[in-house]
Amino acid sequence: MKQVAIIGSGSWGIALATHLAKNGNTVKVWSYLEEEKEAIQTQRRCIQLPNLHIPESITCSNSFEEVLEGSDIVLHVTPSKVLRSTIRQYKPFLKEQPVVICSKGLENETLTTLSEVAKQELPNQKIGVFSGPSHAEEVCMGVPTAIVMGAEDNAVIADVQEMFMNSKMRVYASNDVKGVELGGALKNIIAFCSGIAAEMNMGDNTFAALITRGLVEISKLGEKMGAKKETFYGLSGLGDLIVTCLSEHSRNRKAGKLVGKGLSLEEVRKEVGMTIESIDNIEAAYKLAKQYGIEMPIVNAVYDVLYNGLKPEEAVTMLMTRDKKFE
Amino acid sequence: MKQVAIIGSGSWGIALATHLAKNGNTVKVWSYLEEEKEAIQTQRRCIQLPNLHIPESITCSNSFEEVLEGSDIVLHVTPSKVLRSTIRQYKPFLKEQPVVICSKGLENETLTTLSEVAKQELPNQKIGVFSGPSHAEEVCMGVPTAIVMGAEDNAVIADVQEMFMNSKMRVYASNDVKGVELGGALKNIIAFCSGIAAEMNMGDNTFAALITRGLVEISKLGEKMGAKKETFYGLSGLGDLIVTCLSEHSRNRKAGKLVGKGLSLEEVRKEVGMTIESIDNIEAAYKLAKQYGIEMPIVNAVYDVLYNGLKPEEAVTMLMTRDKKFE
Repeated sequence: MKQVAIIGSGSWGIALATHLAKNGNTVKVWSYLEEEKEAIQTQRRCIQLPNLHIPESITCSNSFEEVLEGSDIVLHVTPSKVLRSTIRQYKPFLKEQPVVICSKGLENETLTTLSEVAKQELPNQKIGVFSGPSHAEEVCMGVPTAIVMGAEDNAVIADVQEMFMNSKMRVYASNDVKGVELGGALKNIIAFCSGIAAEMNMGDNTFAALITRGLVEISKLGEKMGAKKETFYGLSGLGDLIVTCLSEHSRNRKAGKLVGKGLSLEEVRKEVGMTIESIDNIEAAYKLAKQYGIEMPIVNAVYDVLYNGLKPEEAVTMLMTRDKKFE
Repeated sequence: MKQVAIIGSGSWGIALATHLAKNGNTVKVWSYLEEEKEAIQTQRRCIQLPNLHIPESITCSNSFEEVLEGSDIVLHVTPSKVLRSTIRQYKPFLKEQPVVICSKGLENETLTTLSEVAKQELPNQKIGVFSGPSHAEEVCMGVPTAIVMGAEDNAVIADVQEMFMNSKMRVYASNDVKGVELGGALKNIIAFCSGIAAEMNMGDNTFAALITRGLVEISKLGEKMGAKKETFYGLSGLGDLIVTCLSEHSRNRKAGKLVGKGLSLEEVRKEVGMTIESIDNIEAAYKLAKQYGIEMPIVNAVYDVLYNGLKPEEAVTMLMTRDKKFE
């Protein structure tokens, strides 16, 4: 088995660490915060996963050097906003081990995917992405979970499959790195819209249509950006979207519900009280659609609701009464 | 607008009739049962849709001749089991109007799709299929709904779009007739499996993986049968699957839950007390997979649970520990 360095000690980082340790790997976790490191090292707990006892074999440190020392592979699990700056800090301690991005999102300023950011910063490293429908709590509980590992290099994929796979986790391979990460980055938009629809008392028919047509839009954009359409209908796209829409706890869905109630963007931000990725994602998709010349009616409608005073009911009517189309 | 003949007075037939009448079409409904006709004609009600008052303009009759007389188009909405025999009865009263199949399923004895059955019986008629995520009650309530109309002939599609489309219903066009109907016919299998998973307390991760990988299997089979893969990711496939899995009232999901509890097929049939399409569908897909040489691990697993004494837990482990695969 492998010696794994996990960069980031949030719920997803700790869930991956726990699964990997239980599966026989040696795991070291890097934490940004001294007190988080302490909680992990001495109390064996993670604040966001209150029911979890972190396996004793996992070590945690605030030192990149210590965590990366001797590692076969790096899993990068920080928030996407600090991906580039964090990589710059640990780059000096890397040898030849591949770096697998387990964070989701785009770099907002540049609209660049996270694997591209990583490639810019680490041109000599092999880069992969790991994404799919996976609540951290469920992974810790051993709920059967299936994920996609995307990389250009099949040897990197095989290593990741080897270290993760058991009867509780199945890892599918993909060479469409961009498709895998774009699905995970853009699905929040649809989760946000499904929140608006739920608040408007739309039915299951509307919800199903929204998910289906939303994925069509996202996959069209992804295709223009160089990804494969099919990937959006796989675990990292459709699968992740389903899990996000199902989860009542999703910040993105909750934010959508508040917009559906008629709150302004300012009020929603205040109420949710933390970063709402989907709002960044909507802006990003809106800009990318213009840049690539793609028709994205749902994205445009929700953008107009957020920024141009369109009422959600008007948006629905607008979407329903568009020209006749082939599917 | 059109004069529409609707063959079948179940909940879906009546929901379509109601929507079409409200949208300005002239609608006549054929009912198999004298008492159902009476309830519709005199009391304006449908037993399966207790909250609906059927618009006065809709007429109902037990006579094919009366209902088909002067119609521009026929919507066929009977149970799939009586599709062929019903067509044989009304064939003498058809002129040149197209026949649109709104029923779902396969002919079990022959594993033939319903549009193919219709083509065999009505070689001179233009045939279409109409399918998508659409609870009848929601259509009656005016919940925004999106559906696919599949036909080879674009003029037939345009007519159907014209008569249905308004701010509550959007009809997408497709020339992939087989894809549209196979999605609707086979999605029940996954709904059934999601019922088993729910009963086993699998989490959202498992549910999302099941839906995603289930659709992959179904679309593979469909492709071999001559349909387009994309169609399975449209409203009639993915969309309909979502609506089915969400609905707690789904017979198929309920049947799956009972199997998850450990009941035998006999006991499940007794408990559910009516036709469980998904069980027929599983058998059909199992046979078709063999016939076309397709790997369908989920279908095989659920088949073995139903017929070969495999335990659901064993089936999950089997599915999770298959060989490493590309997505």
